[in-house]
Amino acid sequence: MPLPAPLTGVVPPLCTPLTPDGRIDTGSLAALTGRLIAAGVSGLFVLGSSGEAAYLTDAQRRTVVETVAEAAAGRLPVLAGVIDMTTPRVLEHARQARGLGADAIVATAPYYTRTHPAEIADHFRRVRDGAGLPLFAYDIPMAVHTKLPADTVVTLARDGVLAGLKDSSGEDGALRRLLVRVRAQAPDFAVLTGSELTVDGALLAGAHGVVPGLGNVDPHGYVRLYEHAAAGRWREAAAEQDRLAALFALTDAGDPAVMGRNSSALGAFKAALHLQGVIACPATAPPQVPLDEAAVGRVRRCLEEAGLL
Amino acid sequence: MPLPAPLTGVVPPLCTPLTPDGRIDTGSLAALTGRLIAAGVSGLFVLGSSGEAAYLTDAQRRTVVETVAEAAAGRLPVLAGVIDMTTPRVLEHARQARGLGADAIVATAPYYTRTHPAEIADHFRRVRDGAGLPLFAYDIPMAVHTKLPADTVVTLARDGVLAGLKDSSGEDGALRRLLVRVRAQAPDFAVLTGSELTVDGALLAGAHGVVPGLGNVDPHGYVRLYEHAAAGRWREAAAEQDRLAALFALTDAGDPAVMGRNSSALGAFKAALHLQGVIACPATAPPQVPLDEAAVGRVRRCLEEAGLL
Amino acid sequence: MPLPAPLTGVVPPLCTPLTPDGRIDTGSLAALTGRLIAAGVSGLFVLGSSGEAAYLTDAQRRTVVETVAEAAAGRLPVLAGVIDMTTPRVLEHARQARGLGADAIVATAPYYTRTHPAEIADHFRRVRDGAGLPLFAYDIPMAVHTKLPADTVVTLARDGVLAGLKDSSGEDGALRRLLVRVRAQAPDFAVLTGSELTVDGALLAGAHGVVPGLGNVDPHGYVRLYEHAAAGRWREAAAEQDRLAALFALTDAGDPAVMGRNSSALGAFKAALHLQGVIACPATAPPQVPLDEAAVGRVRRCLEEAGLL
Amino acid sequence: MPLPAPLTGVVPPLCTPLTPDGRIDTGSLAALTGRLIAAGVSGLFVLGSSGEAAYLTDAQRRTVVETVAEAAAGRLPVLAGVIDMTTPRVLEHARQARGLGADAIVATAPYYTRTHPAEIADHFRRVRDGAGLPLFAYDIPMAVHTKLPADTVVTLARDGVLAGLKDSSGEDGALRRLLVRVRAQAPDFAVLTGSELTVDGALLAGAHGVVPGLGNVDPHGYVRLYEHAAAGRWREAAAEQDRLAALFALTDAGDPAVMGRNSSALGAFKAALHLQGVIACPATAPPQVPLDEAAVGRVRRCLEEAGLL
Repeated sequence: MPLPAPLTGVVPPLCTPLTPDGRIDTGSLAALTGRLIAAGVSGLFVLGSSGEAAYLTDAQRRTVVETVAEAAAGRLPVLAGVIDMTTPRVLEHARQARGLGADAIVATAPYYTRTHPAEIADHFRRVRDGAGLPLFAYDIPMAVHTKLPADTVVTLARDGVLAGLKDSSGEDGALRRLLVRVRAQAPDFAVLTGSELTVDGALLAGAHGVVPGLGNVDPHGYVRLYEHAAAGRWREAAAEQDRLAALFALTDAGDPAVMGRNSSALGAFKAALHLQGVIACPATAPPQVPLDEAAVGRVRRCLEEAGLL
Repeated sequence: MPLPAPLTGVVPPLCTPLTPDGRIDTGSLAALTGRLIAAGVSGLFVLGSSGEAAYLTDAQRRTVVETVAEAAAGRLPVLAGVIDMTTPRVLEHARQARGLGADAIVATAPYYTRTHPAEIADHFRRVRDGAGLPLFAYDIPMAVHTKLPADTVVTLARDGVLAGLKDSSGEDGALRRLLVRVRAQAPDFAVLTGSELTVDGALLAGAHGVVPGLGNVDPHGYVRLYEHAAAGRWREAAAEQDRLAALFALTDAGDPAVMGRNSSALGAFKAALHLQGVIACPATAPPQVPLDEAAVGRVRRCLEEAGLL
Repeated sequence: MPLPAPLTGVVPPLCTPLTPDGRIDTGSLAALTGRLIAAGVSGLFVLGSSGEAAYLTDAQRRTVVETVAEAAAGRLPVLAGVIDMTTPRVLEHARQARGLGADAIVATAPYYTRTHPAEIADHFRRVRDGAGLPLFAYDIPMAVHTKLPADTVVTLARDGVLAGLKDSSGEDGALRRLLVRVRAQAPDFAVLTGSELTVDGALLAGAHGVVPGLGNVDPHGYVRLYEHAAAGRWREAAAEQDRLAALFALTDAGDPAVMGRNSSALGAFKAALHLQGVIACPATAPPQVPLDEAAVGRVRRCLEEAGLL
Repeated sequence: MPLPAPLTGVVPPLCTPLTPDGRIDTGSLAALTGRLIAAGVSGLFVLGSSGEAAYLTDAQRRTVVETVAEAAAGRLPVLAGVIDMTTPRVLEHARQARGLGADAIVATAPYYTRTHPAEIADHFRRVRDGAGLPLFAYDIPMAVHTKLPADTVVTLARDGVLAGLKDSSGEDGALRRLLVRVRAQAPDFAVLTGSELTVDGALLAGAHGVVPGLGNVDPHGYVRLYEHAAAGRWREAAAEQDRLAALFALTDAGDPAVMGRNSSALGAFKAALHLQGVIACPATAPPQVPLDEAAVGRVRRCLEEAGLL
């Protein structure tokens, strides 16, 4: 389906349910898709960081795009992450995603290698040209270890190379300056915040929507938050955000002495989806450390306190 | 004067005007103080990063506290930065500040050295005990290269060690989680954002006030922004913030090929104050690189576009 | 061929010659292989950072392993980089490499994701088990953004999970402590430095060999350096290293204002190989910026000063 | 006394003994000075990172310079650290040090603030001019969070602004390239490595000497290492370095779960000096966490294994 310009609303980055032996659980993935659509989200982002894109083989990535595109059945746009290190590798993923029904792709700057703004711009231009799909830039310095330069984003937005930005930089000050610039220069460009704890402020600042990992667990909450903001009910939006900020504590469920931050956060999202009965198995991909019983207990308490269990 | 608990509103971090030969320009500093008070700010923060505290000798620091305390004359609380590497050195500054009339002090975590959350907590406890003045923690990872751990801040707030926090981390997501926690556990604790580009969002999230470097240049703008937010006029607050975000472009006036970020930003603040007729000389302390004529022209244009000249 | 235990000597990380239209230039790659073998190196490392592994598609990676394995024809061990973000993806590369004739594989810690020492150890154990080939750990924090913990390396060495380490961390102090430990605890474990500017010191400290990107350009120099060290001719080794340190200036040929560090360094290696008549075309993979004429001139001068042209 | 040009040999950065109530223990400091001179060191560096300069008040710093200058009594040059954030503050320390008998000063680049190579160069020029003493640059990115640019160092060396460099960057590859350049362009410029684990390699590369924190604990070891190297006995130098690398494990004595790296390393140096009977009390300055009994036991075992107890 054609992508709205700009894309707005809640676009959750779908978790990727796995079977106990590590295959894609397509049934659970379709169920998650259905739940999110029913909650009123406006797009589906597969193969992002919350979708464990970094941990999936190319065959698994294909299965994910295919499954969600089929489950969405044209009701909502499907954005596919094409996370890889450089242009030639990203282009391979992009062509696959297009053939499998994705409506847009989401790419980061080059990583692993030491890059430069001119190379980043060239990268996005080549990916846009080669993919034949609308392209979103994914700004996630925590993973990529560079921040997308604002000038690069504005130029690519104005030139129509980029359809939008997913900003997971957490740098809301830089985001504010960018919003002021693109509003004037590229009005169809969608700015989606990936900072799930400051969505009210980002929407107040003019962001078009949000890509919240926590939206897997509480899609209704983010849809309410977005609707409050869209209607100018800022106090209510802030109260909803406060509730979601408290719920976000579930991402700290895993003990940092024995696992990395991704193991804890992605493990908690999946444990929550499992406790909620949305997915069949909470397993994450190796080498992530599974949450133990105590950690799952902490996830359960967060859900209970938020009224989700 | 006793500090309100919690401190709220606009608390600008005063620039420190210098004479052409590098001495404190006490006349200009008193004039700046008067201008800020007239604009309706609710406190005065001297010897912060915007005040070039890192560049001033101990004697100059004393002159600054003395000058502003005298000019404020008890109308507003004066908070004094006590920026130094470790506890014993910070305590020396704290005792000086107290003797010269400061109403509160503002200290960072230890830096230069490699520290630990337990040491950071002990540092603040010792500074609070030794200083005999209300203590604000200054979270500025860009300078200090550690982020204050949320658990440490909450504990010190609850224990009454800290009267408040100046959060210049730019991590508004972490700030949101902190606000949810301290609201419940330490209601008198003041959270002031130092992120001058996301003040509307921070106030919507429950922050008590703002410490904006740009508030030297446009104190009325920040006071209006704060008052809109306090009255629930969020669209108006956001519009004011947008205007200030555009004005913030003046901090990019200096050419990054020939000077550091501090030279550009602090040089621009002082150039603006000079163009506005508030201070007599725009000089910054060595080894900062002065703005050249072209850069000052860029500052002037930013002021004109913002309606300040 | 079976890998010597420990592997010693000069193991250059081969550049990957490309045709003007971006395909693998197998003829040039075979020629480079032959040149390195003739110079007396003791192993061949393909698909490392110098080999532009981050920029090659999976099909191109297969071509590289196949071409070099065939050209080497069992005369020297071929180590294949299996550079990817996490265990499942690395295992796919590892199985490919094994099927194509690689004698060992070289893997980094997980990247893009936020990981933990326990996950890193588990990652290497799973890769070793799944690959069925000797495994070298590749410590390259510049790309991966974590440093391999010494305790992890020692444990995995002692357990036989790792056959060796390629240390491109540049942290020669940490390397020294590691060497003292593994010498006592895992005598068959090979420690190869990837720091091409401190090879004399590393060999003096007990390292077994070197993986020098610059060895593409001057393999004889590194072989001489290694032989001097092996014979205890330390002054001669240092003089050779000094000459190579001066030659290394060619990696600065590209203008940092218009390109990233990888574009400059890898572009310079390939320009040098082209000037030396080893490869047919100096092209690097997109989105790297090609060296312009002035930059190639700087490479030429470095080669002339080093007596290589 | 006039400084040799270049300064060579072992120049230990003296620990600063404290009394149990936190004053400078001048008797112990004089005893430490005497011990180091007797061991054959060639210079004394006070108020460096190992000397807890970051933790001492200005009055304490004065006491340290005065005490060591008096104890040295002109037998060896005394280099004084003038560690502070920017030029005006560094100059205050420099004037004090000169008046108290220091023979040279050691300054870092500006820190806390965001700086630029042009500002760094200007900083050193102003400090050299204002101090009237030979100036060493102290490259310690771990504390200062910038690396001294090689071009800046070479220019300042050639211009006579800098008498030498203390390189605690740990980047031995960059050091090698620098050594090749200054040897040709500034032969009187002293390059001293602060990387106490790669001294043999640094001397082989042409460094003039070493500033080893561990030299407080085992000055004879570093003097032997230097003398082996000076005589071309490289195998013996490497064996001595290996022994010292094993001894360096004492810096890990403190539990990283409860203290920072400085607490552990500086605490261990002082615990060792106390166990050796050189200083009267092992206390470190607040807010460092003292070593507990178990940690002191680990220090003792390291000393025993190294034959120092």
